[in-house]
Amino acid sequence: MKFGGTSLADAEKIRTAARRAVRTQKQGHQVVMIVSAMGKTTDALEALANQVMRDKPAPKREWDQLMSTGEQVTISLMAMALEEMGSSAISFTAGQIGMVTDDRHTKARIKHIAAERIHEQLDAGRIAIVAGFQGVTETGHVTTLGRGGSNVTLVAIAAALKADLCENYTDVDGVFTADPRIVPTGRKINFISYDEMLELASLGVNVLHNRAVEFAKKYNVPIHVRNSAHNRKGTMIVAATESMEKIVVSGAALKEKLARVSLTKVPNHPGVVARIFHTIAGHDIMVDDIIQTVNDDKTASLSFTVELAEFSDAKVVCGKIVKNLKCDVHYDDSLSKVSVVGVGMRVHTGVAEKMFRALADSKINIENITTSEIKISCMIDRAEGKKALRVVHDAFELGGKKKKPARKRAKKTARKKK
Amino acid sequence: MKFGGTSLADAEKIRTAARRAVRTQKQGHQVVMIVSAMGKTTDALEALANQVMRDKPAPKREWDQLMSTGEQVTISLMAMALEEMGSSAISFTAGQIGMVTDDRHTKARIKHIAAERIHEQLDAGRIAIVAGFQGVTETGHVTTLGRGGSNVTLVAIAAALKADLCENYTDVDGVFTADPRIVPTGRKINFISYDEMLELASLGVNVLHNRAVEFAKKYNVPIHVRNSAHNRKGTMIVAATESMEKIVVSGAALKEKLARVSLTKVPNHPGVVARIFHTIAGHDIMVDDIIQTVNDDKTASLSFTVELAEFSDAKVVCGKIVKNLKCDVHYDDSLSKVSVVGVGMRVHTGVAEKMFRALADSKINIENITTSEIKISCMIDRAEGKKALRVVHDAFELGGKKKKPARKRAKKTARKKK
Repeated sequence: MKFGGTSLADAEKIRTAARRAVRTQKQGHQVVMIVSAMGKTTDALEALANQVMRDKPAPKREWDQLMSTGEQVTISLMAMALEEMGSSAISFTAGQIGMVTDDRHTKARIKHIAAERIHEQLDAGRIAIVAGFQGVTETGHVTTLGRGGSNVTLVAIAAALKADLCENYTDVDGVFTADPRIVPTGRKINFISYDEMLELASLGVNVLHNRAVEFAKKYNVPIHVRNSAHNRKGTMIVAATESMEKIVVSGAALKEKLARVSLTKVPNHPGVVARIFHTIAGHDIMVDDIIQTVNDDKTASLSFTVELAEFSDAKVVCGKIVKNLKCDVHYDDSLSKVSVVGVGMRVHTGVAEKMFRALADSKINIENITTSEIKISCMIDRAEGKKALRVVHDAFELGGKKKKPARKRAKKTARKKK
Repeated sequence: MKFGGTSLADAEKIRTAARRAVRTQKQGHQVVMIVSAMGKTTDALEALANQVMRDKPAPKREWDQLMSTGEQVTISLMAMALEEMGSSAISFTAGQIGMVTDDRHTKARIKHIAAERIHEQLDAGRIAIVAGFQGVTETGHVTTLGRGGSNVTLVAIAAALKADLCENYTDVDGVFTADPRIVPTGRKINFISYDEMLELASLGVNVLHNRAVEFAKKYNVPIHVRNSAHNRKGTMIVAATESMEKIVVSGAALKEKLARVSLTKVPNHPGVVARIFHTIAGHDIMVDDIIQTVNDDKTASLSFTVELAEFSDAKVVCGKIVKNLKCDVHYDDSLSKVSVVGVGMRVHTGVAEKMFRALADSKINIENITTSEIKISCMIDRAEGKKALRVVHDAFELGGKKKKPARKRAKKTARKKK
């Protein structure tokens, strides 16, 4: 069971999480809890570091040494809560559990886990509590695992223990067919495949970090994403099954704040594109989608999208590139991307056509198209973004079967009232 | 160098401490810093634990796991501050430095320290920062060293490294001949022996915990107690020298809130007294001084003092003892103890007489007397406590040579004004 920071924001929430673990253990399971830092702890530690460093970047080893204290506070409080409830519990830092990583501070990768230390405690009837997000190098330096790190810990521990199930407790009910804040008919998905989840995560569905899903896929660990505030089932993330492939589209997503850089008359020589993206990556600019077409005159057109937050940096870099290559450039900072995802696309045809038709019927112009084996994305004007998501969600009947006309529904309700 | 929590209360104070370490290193020294938890961190962690435990006592292993995070925050912030100033630094938790203790959680004792790990870093030109107050068992459980623990860490590290000097930075200027809040003529002592410091600490002089001083004495590590707010020298605690013995009395102390239990007509059989104090210790009551006299009728009189805070517990326990032994009991809860301490007493006579005479001249009645080789203590009425301290301090000229009569001084001042 993994609990995120918002599910552990105060003593009462820690006790609530502890009660859940006790209940699960009483049902006959062995329980390991992976916990994040409490609520705003990480922010407070960051603020302290910035004061001391006067806003210069902190040395990474010391940053990790500092940040890892947040989870260490939660593990011991959780063990206390369990003991207070009469359970037997023991907390573990990464060092104590032998969660060995490489030495890339702030973004370390797990190398191995001394699973026998946890098994010992579980076999003795204890609930083991492990600090998420952190590791330790072979020589004992503390590392952290980067964004989504606690979920990586969850899946890695589950894999090492050959656990039957990962439960990821969070503040949402699961993965939805579309963000219900934008699409009121968005439904919780009961089962979704690792690959679909990976696509959705890269499209901005912020439930589980990609690294955790990749890890789960590699070791075939099922993850149950659910809400810590109640007991209803959430979304199970599992390997794709045949029955999943019957569902052509599982979900739709909208990535809103995007900008596009279009280079035209790019000399079509080997290595030119590689050099362009080498330069861009060298400035730490994350590129979203890339589209290239070769024109008749043997020059190429090259478009790529970036997050709006990185757009001004991208313009500076591209200005230099354009000067060097003597090509043209156009910018557009008012784009969004609507996508549909589904493993069923592998075996079904006509999905792209259906999506384009739905957008066209709603007079939404498509600026660019990119696809993968299980995903279709369309760049559109940002002003049309939310509408486009609703249109696409509706076209694939993700909210359930198409609603009957309003008149018939009213009739039915009237009958019921009798 | 060791810095206490009040000297590390915020980012600016951490930077001030870091500057001091940099300066010392630039003077050609190798520097190890031992740091406590920042200001009120420990209180905040305790409050959290109490909320989770609903005021039940917390499991000690988890308590230690939780409390040790306070120092871990400070070590990493201190390393950052040093790096920000252009120094090379590295922080160490107890586990990382191999500060191995026994497994008595909340009051562990140090067994050994992997000094070579610190030496390596010092030889590489780094300032090493070690978390005070904490240790780690052979099997990797985190322990804490109990009250005064950071000072124990300081002395233990210094001993393991064969350091030339311990600097204990605190919020007072050093050790005084008497508490200057009570005795305005109290002077800072420049040199004091371990034994005198041990006596003063048990008399309530709260500068350095006895365990740290005992450790320093055992390994002959000199400790410089000084104020982190300025650069003036403080008090050096060292082995007794011949020149120290020329000073008969080094300091005077007042322990204010004491109560006395007097048992009379106690059967004078072997083992009776042992049984009495076994019972008292069994109720976790700390006994201060014990006085026993045997009467003509072969019964004994037995007095002992306790801190006022433990007096009501002591009365309950003594009530039972009296019932069992059929002896009498008298209580007095309005006592204080004034003491003088000095290694010179070993070779000088007349100290006790001088003290008793000074108190008598001021019409202060002595209730009990206890002595050690280098200490004389008198129990007196609490109302006379502060006056008694001033009288004794004056009698031994601890504030300097006796002042000349007021008239002559006035004359001198007048002359100066010309």
